[in-house]
Amino acid sequence: MSRLPRLDEAGRALLFTEARTANSFAPTPVTDEELAAVWELAKWPPTAANLQPLRVLYVRTPERKERLVAHMNEGNRAKTAAAPVTAVLAVDTDFHEHVPEVFPINPALKDVLADAPEMRDGMGRFSAGLQIGYFLLAVRAEGLVAGPMAGYDGEAINKEFFPDGRFKTLLVVNIGHPGKDPWFPRMPRLSHDNTVAWA
Amino acid sequence: MSRLPRLDEAGRALLFTEARTANSFAPTPVTDEELAAVWELAKWPPTAANLQPLRVLYVRTPERKERLVAHMNEGNRAKTAAAPVTAVLAVDTDFHEHVPEVFPINPALKDVLADAPEMRDGMGRFSAGLQIGYFLLAVRAEGLVAGPMAGYDGEAINKEFFPDGRFKTLLVVNIGHPGKDPWFPRMPRLSHDNTVAWA
Repeated sequence: MSRLPRLDEAGRALLFTEARTANSFAPTPVTDEELAAVWELAKWPPTAANLQPLRVLYVRTPERKERLVAHMNEGNRAKTAAAPVTAVLAVDTDFHEHVPEVFPINPALKDVLADAPEMRDGMGRFSAGLQIGYFLLAVRAEGLVAGPMAGYDGEAINKEFFPDGRFKTLLVVNIGHPGKDPWFPRMPRLSHDNTVAWA
Repeated sequence: MSRLPRLDEAGRALLFTEARTANSFAPTPVTDEELAAVWELAKWPPTAANLQPLRVLYVRTPERKERLVAHMNEGNRAKTAAAPVTAVLAVDTDFHEHVPEVFPINPALKDVLADAPEMRDGMGRFSAGLQIGYFLLAVRAEGLVAGPMAGYDGEAINKEFFPDGRFKTLLVVNIGHPGKDPWFPRMPRLSHDNTVAWA
């Protein structure tokens, strides 16, 4: 089998080396087609047992945007209000209900997970975390910038947007095009000595 | 500010739409330079408060490989033995010790996290999960294939490779070039109706 290609410099810059978290947003709109295209990429990379527990709520209307902004920490409000769309990324705590569809080689996993809420919680959060990583890079792949934020009242957001309790918010992400002075200074990355080891 | 480019079709295919989890590996070696290049990409995308809790142990030598294989589930042994390198991805439970270096805008976060082991555990696992997502796509960006596996004895691997207890294994990933019949049939992805909502 021949070798696979490497990602070219433009792709490396766009997704990894030059990409930055945005802190201000231009008024340029983001279309529903662009947001659907983000998921059309993000859905493919792997999750444990193909369980795909991540759910995405795109908040776009001024009224729902205002209700979301009210639950963000003070420092995150202006940029969340300015972003053309904000994604609430959540884990589906009942992701096991989709087992027969997504993991047809072992449909009995559904009942195993139904009876093991603690294991299910750990598995769901783990694979949803991987999927958030894929999602943030997929936003960049669509020529958009992401501004992930952990500063918000998660219980209030859950109550507002997921009142039946099934979905739990993991991260809130502004999405759009960069505005004025959109980047903070880049913070240092740990050296290889502190992160990578060889055996 | 002008629009950012979109990732081209070759990049989309390589990282997202055509990429697959590998289940067999060619004997083609993977160099230390290629493995270092993977981290040189994976280190850049965002983590909460820039904390970067993921650690990577590349297991390459036959002796250490054999000790790792012994702790894998039966179904994962042959491919782990065949892969030219296997990465053990782990969370550094004391990642807060690097706060003054990685989050210089708030060095006091180190002590906050030192006193809050439960919050630290949640934060560490969450951001390490994002980083595993970045890592798997970075492996693909280097023209390599990844074979992530959750089936192993984590306590035994921790004892074998991280005896001081600071690092906890989250995922084991074979890395190399595809061998004979490397792909299983692709499993279904959930529809947009089940994953994406609009508000």
